Amino acid sequence: MKSFIDTVRQEAAKIDAFMAEDLTTRETQLDPLLTEILRYGLFTGGKRIRPLLVVLAAGSCGGELDRSAYRLGSAFEYLHAATLFHDDIIDTSATRRGKPSVYRRYGTNAAILAGDFLHAWAMAIVGELTGREGLAIFCRATTGMVDGEFLQLRNAQRLNISEVDYSQAIMGKTGLLIAAACEVGALYAGAAKEQAAALRAYGEHLGRAFQIIDDLLDYQGDTGKTGKAVGNDLSEGKATLPLIVALRQAGTTEKARLLEIFTDQEARRRRFGEVFQLIDGCGGFSGARQRAEAEVAGAIASLELFSASKRGAERELLGALAGFLLTREK
Amino acid sequence: MKSFIDTVRQEAAKIDAFMAEDLTTRETQLDPLLTEILRYGLFTGGKRIRPLLVVLAAGSCGGELDRSAYRLGSAFEYLHAATLFHDDIIDTSATRRGKPSVYRRYGTNAAILAGDFLHAWAMAIVGELTGREGLAIFCRATTGMVDGEFLQLRNAQRLNISEVDYSQAIMGKTGLLIAAACEVGALYAGAAKEQAAALRAYGEHLGRAFQIIDDLLDYQGDTGKTGKAVGNDLSEGKATLPLIVALRQAGTTEKARLLEIFTDQEARRRRFGEVFQLIDGCGGFSGARQRAEAEVAGAIASLELFSASKRGAERELLGALAGFLLTREK
Repeated sequence: MKSFIDTVRQEAAKIDAFMAEDLTTRETQLDPLLTEILRYGLFTGGKRIRPLLVVLAAGSCGGELDRSAYRLGSAFEYLHAATLFHDDIIDTSATRRGKPSVYRRYGTNAAILAGDFLHAWAMAIVGELTGREGLAIFCRATTGMVDGEFLQLRNAQRLNISEVDYSQAIMGKTGLLIAAACEVGALYAGAAKEQAAALRAYGEHLGRAFQIIDDLLDYQGDTGKTGKAVGNDLSEGKATLPLIVALRQAGTTEKARLLEIFTDQEARRRRFGEVFQLIDGCGGFSGARQRAEAEVAGAIASLELFSASKRGAERELLGALAGFLLTREK
Repeated sequence: MKSFIDTVRQEAAKIDAFMAEDLTTRETQLDPLLTEILRYGLFTGGKRIRPLLVVLAAGSCGGELDRSAYRLGSAFEYLHAATLFHDDIIDTSATRRGKPSVYRRYGTNAAILAGDFLHAWAMAIVGELTGREGLAIFCRATTGMVDGEFLQLRNAQRLNISEVDYSQAIMGKTGLLIAAACEVGALYAGAAKEQAAALRAYGEHLGRAFQIIDDLLDYQGDTGKTGKAVGNDLSEGKATLPLIVALRQAGTTEKARLLEIFTDQEARRRRFGEVFQLIDGCGGFSGARQRAEAEVAGAIASLELFSASKRGAERELLGALAGFLLTREK
């Protein structure tokens, strides 16, 4: 039997091949610089989690996994890339997966425009393949993501954000699109309402787990594997779950020291090691990890409905994907 | 009988009221900063030409001009605003209609995000009200607009662009969205194929005329009326129709002088008066204006199909709108 990782790799290769073909077909009608940027920004060796979720969700609901299913999946990768093009400008992120981000390589103007192009392209595909209903889900996700970014702009440099605020922020950042991928996949397969709702719930749990792990990696990740430096969130004044949990559990002295560093821009940059020790000592990392584990358990529980399904392979892969998240190192 | 201008003003007020209501309804679910930016960027005293075209096109094809028709119209204003938010970043335009542009007032990050929000919002409305077919037209316009911006990035500082290149560039910049507004309005009204095609042709002519006038105003406009300085295109190295026509018609001496100034960044900024005289002397302004007049005539001719229509008022307004373009001063 194929291992889970092999399956993910194989599906990612399928999505990549599909996107490459899609680009080649359109290339002749597009500006050469735009095509170059799309190739640069899309083919980054990513795991293609969002398209995979579309395909697996459709499969679990008995949908046929034909070319159109993969095309629908690719739309979620196009939108994901569009948000990364713009987010890297906003966060002034110099690198992405170990190479210069699109705006660093091609300039801010080209990165804004190429993001707009992918945004429109993604919506056209979703509208074409899933009609009004699918488009409405997709647009709720995109407008919600932007709204979440504004929440984050306002939360920046605020240390008294609660776990509720944090949950809301990460939902906007990651959860909405992942949940939409699952729900739109179900819709594409003509799923019953409760199936679509179950897959959406799965996606929401998965999205939260995904972002919590991401936030943990920003402290504990191995730069060689993640392709980005640790400590970005801290130096930008973003209070993520490890810090929030640590503050809740910290004694008076530790809390005062964490607050002192966090409110000083210079200290945030220079005192990463000390903050790491303080968070670790107050159980911030283990607390955040437990929360991610609980979300994964919630995701798997949401799949219960499909336990009698004939399409056991897809359901099992959705479960395995959730569990796999906890082991990810990049 | 109401004058044409009064009708345009009245319709613009209707669209504004509609958008204000739409925003108020959503406000409670949106981040307060996002809402503030949307209000700032949307309510600028604009003429609301694009929504008006949607409504008039729908009306000419016998469609009912109910709330949904105005809602569909507003989607085109949302998208138009989204492109302005991003374009002002790209062109580093400090002002828009006499007040600071969104990115100058709220920063680049907020302007990128608010543009993305309006983009998604616009597509959701078009998809909801006109389904797959309307969305496909809309997305072809948005992706075409981005592609046109890349063409413009490449054309910048090139003086040997032809009238064909110019036509293609202005189609992307203005024509595609205006043509899409007309076509989607027809589609909404359940128009026959030839009606939709005629309205699209009308929109394409109108869009070209609109942009040529815009490019003329960049030389000849009255800053007090347009709200922006003259000479922007020249100083940015954009060769627009007045200059292209002038070069084609210029004698050896004039041509050499124009080339000399155009290829020198500093001279482009300081020699506006001289370039103005040279273009004028070589018939660049009158040539460009003739081209705009020919486009307006083409637009009006495209409406022939509707001459027997019962909805004479809408057809007449479409004709008047085209003629009115030639007199616009802002």
